Amino acid sequence: MADLSKKTVERLCVYHRELLELENEGTDHIFSHQLAKRAGVSPVQLRHDIMGIGYSGSPARGYEISEMLKSIAKQLLSTKQQNVAIVGIGNLGRAIMAYFHGRRENIRIIAGFDSDLQKINRTISGCYCYSMNDIERICKYHKIKAAIIAVPEREAQDIAEKLSQAGIRGIMNFAPVRLVLPDSIYVENLDMALTLEKVAYFARQ
Amino acid sequence: MADLSKKTVERLCVYHRELLELENEGTDHIFSHQLAKRAGVSPVQLRHDIMGIGYSGSPARGYEISEMLKSIAKQLLSTKQQNVAIVGIGNLGRAIMAYFHGRRENIRIIAGFDSDLQKINRTISGCYCYSMNDIERICKYHKIKAAIIAVPEREAQDIAEKLSQAGIRGIMNFAPVRLVLPDSIYVENLDMALTLEKVAYFARQ
Repeated sequence: MADLSKKTVERLCVYHRELLELENEGTDHIFSHQLAKRAGVSPVQLRHDIMGIGYSGSPARGYEISEMLKSIAKQLLSTKQQNVAIVGIGNLGRAIMAYFHGRRENIRIIAGFDSDLQKINRTISGCYCYSMNDIERICKYHKIKAAIIAVPEREAQDIAEKLSQAGIRGIMNFAPVRLVLPDSIYVENLDMALTLEKVAYFARQ
Repeated sequence: MADLSKKTVERLCVYHRELLELENEGTDHIFSHQLAKRAGVSPVQLRHDIMGIGYSGSPARGYEISEMLKSIAKQLLSTKQQNVAIVGIGNLGRAIMAYFHGRRENIRIIAGFDSDLQKINRTISGCYCYSMNDIERICKYHKIKAAIIAVPEREAQDIAEKLSQAGIRGIMNFAPVRLVLPDSIYVENLDMALTLEKVAYFARQ
């Protein structure tokens, strides 16, 4: 399980999402080439990934969606709720909290951190907000291993180091800056400004 | 200029951002290996990219930051303001508008679209909001070629097709769904739920 690569995990997440959607539509079986098309991967890649998690379908009926969902979930998802923290409760931070509130059963944003006294000790989008000074104490108390950074660029590195000291192992970073952290910490950058610049560039061509 | 690959454009955007930051710090020259380190690429890659846009530094003093900024901007940035539309003015849409409001000189979110009558014909974060029915008319009138999709999953494909008909050539898609569009339309997906699942997975290992 610990051996899955970043790309494999990403693809399994996509399959899981597509399968959930198919199940909601009332479908109970799907062929590998159909699921591959929905997920935007080659059928060979899909079959390889699915065999890798120890599931196989029937040649006649394809994959059984409910069983495949269970197999992927067993690999990917935590069996118990995983607590996540968010640092920075500005416009973006609040939108992220609202976006995730009640969205996932297994992942929950349980603590927010900000330096603004107006936000501290309040519940925002179902999440209690603490002072930045409480990062280490609260993360350890709630066994939080993953965090979202939604602070301005200039504060991000400092916050990332605080999170690292607090035992955080995975960071989703919205600040447009490359964080310098030990290799043991997994970082995903979502740089909205950079992405919009790229889209704008290709839209002009 | 139209020949730059997606990866090259992405790296040039990162160099541009790092150089702006250096300039703000009062630095006027930088060596390629230093800039490469800040940008998280190899020095060879950086020199290749910079030669590709027709700029070269001095072996003794490195790159002249102000000149390099001009060279990159000439390649990447529109010389006039580029208008962008956003569809979906919910929590996430409003956060995106607030995030970009006044942030970029050359890229401006000029029109918002929603189906909620409470939002239509109002100015939100400096951006006028129209009915979904006006997408084609407004995009053509303002010569909008790039758009942001921040609607729920089930509406995203329909909106993407409307944008395509309205002449949009680049889309930044926040809906967790793979859009099916002609190859001529450039799409960047920012799937926050998928990203958080990945971060949570690796944080558990």
